[in-house]
Amino acid sequence: MKFSPLVDELIHALKGLPGVGPKSAQRMAFQLLERERKGGLALADALQQAMSDVGHCHTCRTFTEEHQCAICASPKRNLAGQICVVETPADVLAIESGGHFNGRYFVLLGHLSPLDGVGPDELGLTLLEQQLASDDINELILATNPTVEGDATANYIADIARQHEVKISRIAHGVPVGGELEYVDSTTLALSFNGRLPL
Amino acid sequence: MKFSPLVDELIHALKGLPGVGPKSAQRMAFQLLERERKGGLALADALQQAMSDVGHCHTCRTFTEEHQCAICASPKRNLAGQICVVETPADVLAIESGGHFNGRYFVLLGHLSPLDGVGPDELGLTLLEQQLASDDINELILATNPTVEGDATANYIADIARQHEVKISRIAHGVPVGGELEYVDSTTLALSFNGRLPL
Repeated sequence: MKFSPLVDELIHALKGLPGVGPKSAQRMAFQLLERERKGGLALADALQQAMSDVGHCHTCRTFTEEHQCAICASPKRNLAGQICVVETPADVLAIESGGHFNGRYFVLLGHLSPLDGVGPDELGLTLLEQQLASDDINELILATNPTVEGDATANYIADIARQHEVKISRIAHGVPVGGELEYVDSTTLALSFNGRLPL
Repeated sequence: MKFSPLVDELIHALKGLPGVGPKSAQRMAFQLLERERKGGLALADALQQAMSDVGHCHTCRTFTEEHQCAICASPKRNLAGQICVVETPADVLAIESGGHFNGRYFVLLGHLSPLDGVGPDELGLTLLEQQLASDDINELILATNPTVEGDATANYIADIARQHEVKISRIAHGVPVGGELEYVDSTTLALSFNGRLPL
């Protein structure tokens, strides 16, 4: 025996969220039913609207319900002529929280992964190439993750970009600030030696 | 700068779920937007329906969208004449998963906590007393949690029940099966000695 059909359905639907198991889903459902009916309805509304209305920015492919996202729509961000390529919208937020980058972004929404059916088309590389071909862009910064797939994707995009007149760079990999050399893996250490800068 | 308004709103609403922080909420929102739009809409529907339609069983106060829950509606469960008092609907599920109890439940939806404004009325004790006064019930099993509040609630309910002709019992507290004496706290050990059964 389980709970009533509607409660069971709610628990089942909550289990679909990443990182939520059966026990957490049950706890969430009861908390909402007991104390947060308003919050539950607000969440239902927010989900409904976001799932139906949020699409992709026509310039950088990040999530937005507008034609262009706020960054792409800002004339200031186009002045630098820089495009930073990242894998996910969360990466955009991470870079924006630093506030040191003034150019635009291009969000791949993934990385090259032929076995999963993710090729250049899925990553919107045609759209990126059109932007590189325009006169506005003079630098391409590749900020995909430092993983095998991220590196492969960065190299693939660099090959495309070489056909256009743009500077191409990859963000530096090395010892993170506050980290201790002793605990950094050897690959990262090797990369930090390769990427050393003159003082 | 943050994400677009709809995405921000979704992340904010997801943060309202228990155990979900800003980073998890962001991950959930992106996962739903990227890969699970159908699941997201299903969750919105389930939330909407559950928040609007799920009420309380008129007999035992557990969550149900019907007038009575499945257990209270089953004639078999009334034969034993036993009522088990628990704090939450999740406790009902825990006891039901054992399958050893054949009576009905009464769900307090909390415990006595005067400072939080939770008194006998909030726990539905009038409804419980009406049921105890009827001829159907001959045993009351108190299965509130073995905490200070749970014990106080159990004692309060026992006082009420003594005015009616019912057997009153409290579930046993002691060393859990599979546990080791060495690691059991002294209060539990003392309770397990007090509650020892003749062999």
